[in-house]
Amino acid sequence: MAPRHGGGAAQRLEWELPNGPRDTMKRYEKFADEIAELIRSGVLAPGQKVPSVRHASRTYGVSASTVFQAYYLLEDRGLIVARARSGYFVREHVRRALAEPEIARHAAQTTEVDVSELVFSVLGSIKDPDTVPFGSAFPAPELFPLPRLARSMAHAVRDMEPRAAVADMTPGSHALRRQIALRYRVNGTPLPVEELVVTNGALEALNLCLQVVTQPGDLVAIEAPAFYATLQVLERLKLKAVEIPVHPREGIDLQVLADSLERLPIKACWFMSNFQNPLGASMGEDRKRALAGLLARHQVPLIEDDVYAELYFARQAPRPVKAYDTEGLVMHCGSFSKSLAPGYRVGWVAGGRFHAQVERLKLMTSLSASVPAQAAIADYLLHGGYDRHLRKLRHALESQQHAMLAAVARHFPEQTRVTRPGGGYFLWLELPERVDALKLFQLAHAQGISIAPGPIFSATRGFRNCLRLNYGHPWTVRSEKAMATLGRIIQSL
Amino acid sequence: MAPRHGGGAAQRLEWELPNGPRDTMKRYEKFADEIAELIRSGVLAPGQKVPSVRHASRTYGVSASTVFQAYYLLEDRGLIVARARSGYFVREHVRRALAEPEIARHAAQTTEVDVSELVFSVLGSIKDPDTVPFGSAFPAPELFPLPRLARSMAHAVRDMEPRAAVADMTPGSHALRRQIALRYRVNGTPLPVEELVVTNGALEALNLCLQVVTQPGDLVAIEAPAFYATLQVLERLKLKAVEIPVHPREGIDLQVLADSLERLPIKACWFMSNFQNPLGASMGEDRKRALAGLLARHQVPLIEDDVYAELYFARQAPRPVKAYDTEGLVMHCGSFSKSLAPGYRVGWVAGGRFHAQVERLKLMTSLSASVPAQAAIADYLLHGGYDRHLRKLRHALESQQHAMLAAVARHFPEQTRVTRPGGGYFLWLELPERVDALKLFQLAHAQGISIAPGPIFSATRGFRNCLRLNYGHPWTVRSEKAMATLGRIIQSL
Repeated sequence: MAPRHGGGAAQRLEWELPNGPRDTMKRYEKFADEIAELIRSGVLAPGQKVPSVRHASRTYGVSASTVFQAYYLLEDRGLIVARARSGYFVREHVRRALAEPEIARHAAQTTEVDVSELVFSVLGSIKDPDTVPFGSAFPAPELFPLPRLARSMAHAVRDMEPRAAVADMTPGSHALRRQIALRYRVNGTPLPVEELVVTNGALEALNLCLQVVTQPGDLVAIEAPAFYATLQVLERLKLKAVEIPVHPREGIDLQVLADSLERLPIKACWFMSNFQNPLGASMGEDRKRALAGLLARHQVPLIEDDVYAELYFARQAPRPVKAYDTEGLVMHCGSFSKSLAPGYRVGWVAGGRFHAQVERLKLMTSLSASVPAQAAIADYLLHGGYDRHLRKLRHALESQQHAMLAAVARHFPEQTRVTRPGGGYFLWLELPERVDALKLFQLAHAQGISIAPGPIFSATRGFRNCLRLNYGHPWTVRSEKAMATLGRIIQSL
Repeated sequence: MAPRHGGGAAQRLEWELPNGPRDTMKRYEKFADEIAELIRSGVLAPGQKVPSVRHASRTYGVSASTVFQAYYLLEDRGLIVARARSGYFVREHVRRALAEPEIARHAAQTTEVDVSELVFSVLGSIKDPDTVPFGSAFPAPELFPLPRLARSMAHAVRDMEPRAAVADMTPGSHALRRQIALRYRVNGTPLPVEELVVTNGALEALNLCLQVVTQPGDLVAIEAPAFYATLQVLERLKLKAVEIPVHPREGIDLQVLADSLERLPIKACWFMSNFQNPLGASMGEDRKRALAGLLARHQVPLIEDDVYAELYFARQAPRPVKAYDTEGLVMHCGSFSKSLAPGYRVGWVAGGRFHAQVERLKLMTSLSASVPAQAAIADYLLHGGYDRHLRKLRHALESQQHAMLAAVARHFPEQTRVTRPGGGYFLWLELPERVDALKLFQLAHAQGISIAPGPIFSATRGFRNCLRLNYGHPWTVRSEKAMATLGRIIQSL
């Protein structure tokens, strides 16, 4: 039998072998990432000239050809632009033209949730595959290494012991849980393999967590705006929402949260600390630490939805709030659906001090995630080159974000405010006050374009003039035309 | 796009082609099934001589060699025995030696359910792969065509369109739902493809159904004894159980049920009409029709757990209560976990008039079953020879049942009563009154043998002197020895 406790040395090896996935990054990619980081951190400001090829080559000790390759890549990713005979400059028009949306001004309120019908009617109408999928919740499946994953699947099921089909059902494949734990460890968030339960996607994980720590009628602190599934789950479980405003860049308003925890018998929080859906906000390390402290003081659990964690554009992976949790209060949920294997329905939860209860509830409600899907992903993580794929995926998403931001600047009214998230694949737009996003949704739908209107992200049907746009699909002439059409409809409202 | 409504002609063709799965049954297998049916129906009584080879060959118009092959098969299946120079006789010792358990005598009572802890402690202690798995809930994975299924999986994921990974997430793969609907149609229970939702195994289907039709505090009629997961789910959802006695052969006591429906505000029933777990009872057609009538009169929904439907030993597949439901009250749940693909976690529900609510709840709680697993099973159903596999599986289970019944007769006290189900892979035993099954469970566990003690099948911890034994594993010397050990422990109590 395989040893149950992750042997540190043996696992680290997989990552440190000279030919391992970590080392396949090309020199010019690494150099491009360094420049990108300078741009993101503001050291290189919008409009500023980036170092000349000769200068960069000397300063960084890389060949001129490496610098060229890197600048081409950065140009593709929309971070720099070439000007004839002048060299490369940090792209600037987006940051200038478009302001950031403001934080929702209302204070935290306690609300019965009643938004499911609206969400279903919106979701139901965007299923048509011929629709321009700006309203979609998924990135384009073409961005995922599905053929390679298919090979891993074929390999895994061919070699599977018959017993494996029923062993390890709950809590899930040990091989897969080891791989997941390993990724967390490399990222500075050690998680014991034993704390992990594999679930049918993150959605099931979140449902399980919420059911473990609440009873009907309880108060749950959620974000405003929040992912609509959060609202649906609260409604279904007869929980009351305390909506905490989210800053478009910094995440949850900690002051409002602190006041609410003081004032109200909140039984759980449910937040996304990285690339929050729909705002794209990410909390800084200090704010994550402060949040963990708040939870500890009030002994309130956090259900942390971290499904976009791998889709960061910066050089470093963001850490979850879980990394700062010393009390076992964070129930951390992740998934491969957004980064590797859409449709496989493999997510996970590290349930902290509630871990045993989560595992039991999983056992009673759906027994286990699909064993072949788990085996395929475990095989892929070991042999498939996940990090290489993720780098490509992140670059694709970042360049698509630039393309969409540029299209917003070109086609939407000047007063439009828009986020500029550091990861994920959603933009959040605040349109002029007169625009009714539900009306816009209907008119756009009639033109074969889907959007996600603001009110589906709010228990109180707020965000009337807001919408979420998905840039997770390769940018085409059709996308550009659809943005122009949206712009025209908005002007007409 | 494929047409959404099942074109009858095109689908039926797959079944009627000369080389289709239905026609691969060998002549001797067909003949063996005819004789088996005569035995089961009592036309050929225990101890009676079966027709001589010459007589059978003439009467049935088959070759002598076919008759011989058939008799060998029936001998393997434990239905007939050869006596030197006298020919073949219907096996008799089991039916003579062992009486049937009696129907639980208590009337229907309303009970808070509190059995989960006991169930977890029993289940937790039988996970060891070296234990003799008489307490297991699964048949041996070796009985399933896992290598052939692996080929279907490889084929299905290799050819999968990227879009398929996210399309059809809820309600599930259209190709698979069509195959499922087709099987029901062939069996005389037409189900529209649109009513079917694919789930993460039947357990999720059952959970969804119960949540759709009940609120915490509601009364639900269940069987006594009942599958322990039923009890756990009721406990988790804070539902009260009304336990309806089950006759070991005929199933639910309709009179007690009728009285209870009259007397109590029962919100739902949850029954297994075929090869009930743990008793193995199956309701006759008339009783199923009567049950459907009762439900209609009281407008109470039935959650029908039909996961053992394919494991029948008779010639004809039993039909579900769903087949007699004219009101859309039956929420019919099935699964491939017990008949084809353990660990794939693919089940389904045909939710009747509640179908849209079930689909929405599925969407909100776990979005979708694993897409590759669905695709693999759809491919297997079309190309893999499911019916051929099922025939082999049924024969294996039947002969294992005979072996276990014989072992009970050999090793257990004379007063032992035991069921003799017409399908599935469980025996239910009623031991002498003095035997405490929980005590037996502990002593057996210490000897490396698992059993499922009676009290885990009861909301009121009844069935103190009963146990369920799993005969779903190939019978070996080790099995026989384990039965002898069990017998000795029982004698010592």
